[in-house]
Amino acid sequence: METRTEISSLGEFGLIQRINKATKTTLPDTITGIGDDAAVIDTGEEYGLLTSDMLLEGVHFDLTFFPLKHLGYKAIAVNVSDIAAMNGIPKQVTVNVALSNRFSVEAVDELYEGIRIACKDFNVDLVGGDTSSSRSGLMISVSVFGKVKKEKVTYRSTAKPNDLLCVTGDLGGAYLGLQLLEREKQVFLANPQMQPELEGKDYVVQRQLRPEARMDVIYELAEAGVIPTSMIDVSDGLASDLLHICAQSGVGAVVFEERLPIDEQTFLAASELNIGPVTAALNGGEDYELLFTVSQASYELIKNNPKITFIGYMTDKRDEIVLHTKADSRVPITAQGWS
Amino acid sequence: METRTEISSLGEFGLIQRINKATKTTLPDTITGIGDDAAVIDTGEEYGLLTSDMLLEGVHFDLTFFPLKHLGYKAIAVNVSDIAAMNGIPKQVTVNVALSNRFSVEAVDELYEGIRIACKDFNVDLVGGDTSSSRSGLMISVSVFGKVKKEKVTYRSTAKPNDLLCVTGDLGGAYLGLQLLEREKQVFLANPQMQPELEGKDYVVQRQLRPEARMDVIYELAEAGVIPTSMIDVSDGLASDLLHICAQSGVGAVVFEERLPIDEQTFLAASELNIGPVTAALNGGEDYELLFTVSQASYELIKNNPKITFIGYMTDKRDEIVLHTKADSRVPITAQGWS
Repeated sequence: METRTEISSLGEFGLIQRINKATKTTLPDTITGIGDDAAVIDTGEEYGLLTSDMLLEGVHFDLTFFPLKHLGYKAIAVNVSDIAAMNGIPKQVTVNVALSNRFSVEAVDELYEGIRIACKDFNVDLVGGDTSSSRSGLMISVSVFGKVKKEKVTYRSTAKPNDLLCVTGDLGGAYLGLQLLEREKQVFLANPQMQPELEGKDYVVQRQLRPEARMDVIYELAEAGVIPTSMIDVSDGLASDLLHICAQSGVGAVVFEERLPIDEQTFLAASELNIGPVTAALNGGEDYELLFTVSQASYELIKNNPKITFIGYMTDKRDEIVLHTKADSRVPITAQGWS
Repeated sequence: METRTEISSLGEFGLIQRINKATKTTLPDTITGIGDDAAVIDTGEEYGLLTSDMLLEGVHFDLTFFPLKHLGYKAIAVNVSDIAAMNGIPKQVTVNVALSNRFSVEAVDELYEGIRIACKDFNVDLVGGDTSSSRSGLMISVSVFGKVKKEKVTYRSTAKPNDLLCVTGDLGGAYLGLQLLEREKQVFLANPQMQPELEGKDYVVQRQLRPEARMDVIYELAEAGVIPTSMIDVSDGLASDLLHICAQSGVGAVVFEERLPIDEQTFLAASELNIGPVTAALNGGEDYELLFTVSQASYELIKNNPKITFIGYMTDKRDEIVLHTKADSRVPITAQGWS
């Protein structure tokens, strides 16, 4: 009898690890393959960057509250964010879309309007891809090609002890925005006469529905003459993404709870939903901010940038990745947010 | 009231045209965007090539007869074929896979074994992508990055009158292989005791289940010192793909029916299924052979290559794309195979 192992017994992360472990690269121009935000390809004078990600209806988004235009935008932004995390400049994108006959031509137009607005905002060209019918639901798969000067490429694996840990923007908002949208959906399903109560919650809702890739910060780092020693984008949550940097760099980290940048609306939403704001910041995910390390000398050059917050530092204790709490205790940071 | 236009009223081709028409490229390093087999990107010394395509269960493949290992192979091969059609060398691939909990870890292993075999055969590195759960069925989205010397890139739009029209391998087999597999599936569904009758049909079945990208011919053209004047891969069928070359190059074409390369097994399957073999060759699709034009001088250098068949020539009559039949009449070639 054939063995059948359920994917749930490995988990999504375990499955990805299983696939990656069996994958080796062989070409001299493949500088790095799987394991960073984007693959790095030697194209001669510069490095090329390649990344790809897929969004599926019912898994990654819920069209009962996700406008198609925003979805198109987000599909581009989250992939551009992976190029940003390599300190690169995104250039060309391909978009594959599959949709069932539930969708009209007007719906497709909305989706592509969002895609085109994102392409304009991030200065990338839509150069290919495919539209296909699906048996059920909507799927979007985006690939981005980008470029980076060879001396500027930034990996997850090169953080050093005593580097300072920084993050852009603020954290936890996208997760709480999603919780609010889910709550309003349940209210609406129970009573379709009810209007959604999202007044004063526009920021966290927007963090979920229309995330930005922080290309602005990439350009500002370049202007300041700063090359991070390591970088990742915050897609799974600060905790999980910091653990990637630590594991791949062989370093530990101390994060100061009081330094975590959390927007006022995020605090209010957290309070309303009875979720800890620090938990949302650490494990919420989908913020698409940049988490990076810099040398202390580099930090002097960016410390006045209001988009960048110093939140901690790296250590040589590779097994100690801790949150230094406001009460001056230290608690281990663990990855959550994996299904 | 909002307007709702059904996608079926435009057709898949019409929808793609609508999207493409609204898409403009703006970056100086985007040499060509949508409209060829792959996008062309200026990376400095060379051109980069980027292409992406998606296969969906129930739309592009039927797992009742499609082994997962072959499916993984095919997903890579059909994308590599698009790089070949630009006269390029494929280098790196990303693979996004979404699957429902109907699939076991062993099934995922099978799929990725096929992907890895194809990567080895075509000498490409798997460098990224994503595995995700889906609500129903299996989806694979593959992107390939390739390279080509600037003077060697081959477009659809550059065929010239009097160029000779050539095709690699043989045509119509993949389509007839699919028809046979579909027939055996119906027989099996009606009577599960029946064994599939596919003896002596291994070639056409393999053409469907395990197509090859013709990188071998790309290397042989390079060795012969031949750069085609235009090229496309035969994915939608010779007719449809020839019409792309003619429309984009502004030329006409004459194809000789008696020159169409059709394998003996394809003839036999066509006869058994009561399908015209020439129809299968012209409109069947999925052969993933290369259709290209060469100058008469170049043709002299490749005419003894048994993998390449001369099937016609290009003319300056852009509205006349005709099949010169064995009975010496000329009939217009029209695109079919679009849903």
